[in-house]
Amino acid sequence: VTRLSPDLDRAAAAVRDAESPLGSRRGLFEVPEGIVYLDGNSLGPLPRSAPDRLDEVLRGEWGTGLIASWNTADWINLGRRVGARIAPLIGAAPGDVHVGDSTSVTLFKTMVAACRLRPDRRVIVVEPSTFPTDGYVAAGVARLLGLDLRWCDPADPAAALDDDVALVSLTHVDFRSGAMFAMADVTAAAHEVGALAQWDLCHSTGAVPVDLTGADADLAVGCTYKYLNGGPGSPAFAWVAPRHQAALDQPVTGWMGHARPFDMELEYAPTDGVGRLASGTPPVLALSVLDAALDGFDGISMETLRQASLSLTDYFIDLVDARLGTVLEVITPRDHARRGSQVSLRHEHAYGVVQALIERGVVGDFRSPDVARFGFAPLFVTHTDVYDAVEHLVAVMAGGEYARPGYAVRNAVT
Amino acid sequence: VTRLSPDLDRAAAAVRDAESPLGSRRGLFEVPEGIVYLDGNSLGPLPRSAPDRLDEVLRGEWGTGLIASWNTADWINLGRRVGARIAPLIGAAPGDVHVGDSTSVTLFKTMVAACRLRPDRRVIVVEPSTFPTDGYVAAGVARLLGLDLRWCDPADPAAALDDDVALVSLTHVDFRSGAMFAMADVTAAAHEVGALAQWDLCHSTGAVPVDLTGADADLAVGCTYKYLNGGPGSPAFAWVAPRHQAALDQPVTGWMGHARPFDMELEYAPTDGVGRLASGTPPVLALSVLDAALDGFDGISMETLRQASLSLTDYFIDLVDARLGTVLEVITPRDHARRGSQVSLRHEHAYGVVQALIERGVVGDFRSPDVARFGFAPLFVTHTDVYDAVEHLVAVMAGGEYARPGYAVRNAVT
Repeated sequence: VTRLSPDLDRAAAAVRDAESPLGSRRGLFEVPEGIVYLDGNSLGPLPRSAPDRLDEVLRGEWGTGLIASWNTADWINLGRRVGARIAPLIGAAPGDVHVGDSTSVTLFKTMVAACRLRPDRRVIVVEPSTFPTDGYVAAGVARLLGLDLRWCDPADPAAALDDDVALVSLTHVDFRSGAMFAMADVTAAAHEVGALAQWDLCHSTGAVPVDLTGADADLAVGCTYKYLNGGPGSPAFAWVAPRHQAALDQPVTGWMGHARPFDMELEYAPTDGVGRLASGTPPVLALSVLDAALDGFDGISMETLRQASLSLTDYFIDLVDARLGTVLEVITPRDHARRGSQVSLRHEHAYGVVQALIERGVVGDFRSPDVARFGFAPLFVTHTDVYDAVEHLVAVMAGGEYARPGYAVRNAVT
Repeated sequence: VTRLSPDLDRAAAAVRDAESPLGSRRGLFEVPEGIVYLDGNSLGPLPRSAPDRLDEVLRGEWGTGLIASWNTADWINLGRRVGARIAPLIGAAPGDVHVGDSTSVTLFKTMVAACRLRPDRRVIVVEPSTFPTDGYVAAGVARLLGLDLRWCDPADPAAALDDDVALVSLTHVDFRSGAMFAMADVTAAAHEVGALAQWDLCHSTGAVPVDLTGADADLAVGCTYKYLNGGPGSPAFAWVAPRHQAALDQPVTGWMGHARPFDMELEYAPTDGVGRLASGTPPVLALSVLDAALDGFDGISMETLRQASLSLTDYFIDLVDARLGTVLEVITPRDHARRGSQVSLRHEHAYGVVQALIERGVVGDFRSPDVARFGFAPLFVTHTDVYDAVEHLVAVMAGGEYARPGYAVRNAVT
């Protein structure tokens, strides 16, 4: 075994943690003793303030206020208020973010609306390595609207663009590899042929600086249960560039997107702005937990988060290179400009590697067919966590633990 | 003032309550002291078991189990398990009910799927007095699919049916009047012309016996935050007749409706059964609360609930007739076969009537333009509540409280 250089050892990690401007944030989240949680990019941990907040919503607002809480507790605007708190994380104005449905439903609505903004064009471009739901929803939208789905090469999405393209819809950070697209460049290429660009921010928001406005993006959708720590199945958000809002025409025309929902008029008339993306009654309990979770981002800049994230992923890559470079391949880009907030390792026994680590208290996850994925959520993951995770990884690889026969069942939700 | 006949007085109400087989259920719900809550058809009250249940889901399942709880706490099947508990309330088999999105989104999916089951037909029939979202969504679906929307006369929906009709989508119990359609008859009329019948059960489920199987219905959608007490914005359910499930083709093809979501295949392949109505990640927190709320229905038949509901609405109507028959018009059908679980009164100052009652602790709600609506959820409303509500209503009408100048703002969510 090679001796680790002093700048990579555990003492150095502790020094980096002590110097981190995010050090005190870790206490805002429930990370069980003995667990190194590198799966916040799948399900963020419980914000410690959430149970009390939700108890107050249940016993106080619902239990005591009953129906009046739609007004007195302003439930009716909760989605808007939560959207306004997400906005600064993605380079959006506070009023331009809607929160309400699942990611898949939200993608569906914005994709249909985007294609309707380019009614003379017949192609939707997606990339084959995207998170499955993005491709499935795009295929469903294409079939519904009589359009064609075109797969692009993720290494060069612009090559798939031409005058037929209505929309290119890409995942900003790839869920499997952690590779990040150059949002502004791809968006510019889309605009050059007259197409719109939609960005799935599921694996970016809260860990990677996103500047939708600066990138001149057209639409975006993102999940809130990963780096935003909103809880299992928490609702997704959508952003629409102000220039498209007045013409935005989404297909699920429910009453909550109406300009005057309580007048109960016969004809649908969409409200102004992104609020017209609403369909049904807002999910108050989930929105309340998400609202509490967003407290974790108060008072820190995305730049600070990004520096912390890069410091963690750099450190993990350096340690893997130094200690396991001959047995594991880092497939996440080393270039900061192309890297999200996760590091993925390739190994033919990746499933067993992840399972053996979980038994040792290091939680990452497996992505088919051969990827072990580790997320570094800067709000609660420390350099010491990284050191300990790699220490366990070395033991797993050295001892062949990954090849145990019990490792046959796959793990669950991204 | 006329003397009330002894069988209608408060002592008689107390006797009826003491004899009710549902008497002990009231304690399962949080109804604040001094409040007569006749708005459970808008937002059911907090089930007393919900806060502890949710705390366990938060601190135990999420906080401690983290990502593993998708498997260890079976979050992944929670929607299916909750659907199986709703099934007996609507005359469905346990595996035929899906729970997940908002009512509007669910209506959208099932309406598109229904029209795709009748691809050669070009008309969707709805009725103009339906809850707005039903009409708005139907109009959106019609436009999306290039179909026509046809409004029927609620007094005779069958008159609007012909060979062009793909789908007739009706609300089983009208949100404004409380009138109930004869589900089996209308469904039969739809089938006679080769159309499908979809039922919106928002104002039926949990208060009125529904027999989707017996009525030979095709599809149904329902809300869970009214009589099912699932909490503000809790997810809706959908039912699809077994004969249509294999061909069911809904448009929001997200990964959770895939046959093998975790294999992350490139092409969408729907799972068997109603599970293909799923799109995104299930809303675990809301589903957990709904699961706790459904405990309130354990061990009682819908027939018992219906008898209790009719006893309450009969009593309310009798008291209004006896004491206020000259000033308020009961617009809810007196015929049991046509009555839901609410009673609606018409008065030109209905808004003021409702507001004055709320100030007195009697919570009903106003429906534009002139309806005061009172819901009688049999799990927690008592005959004594009914007596007291009418006592207050008499005072409001006699004292002209309804005409106070402050009553200008409308109340919120149905």
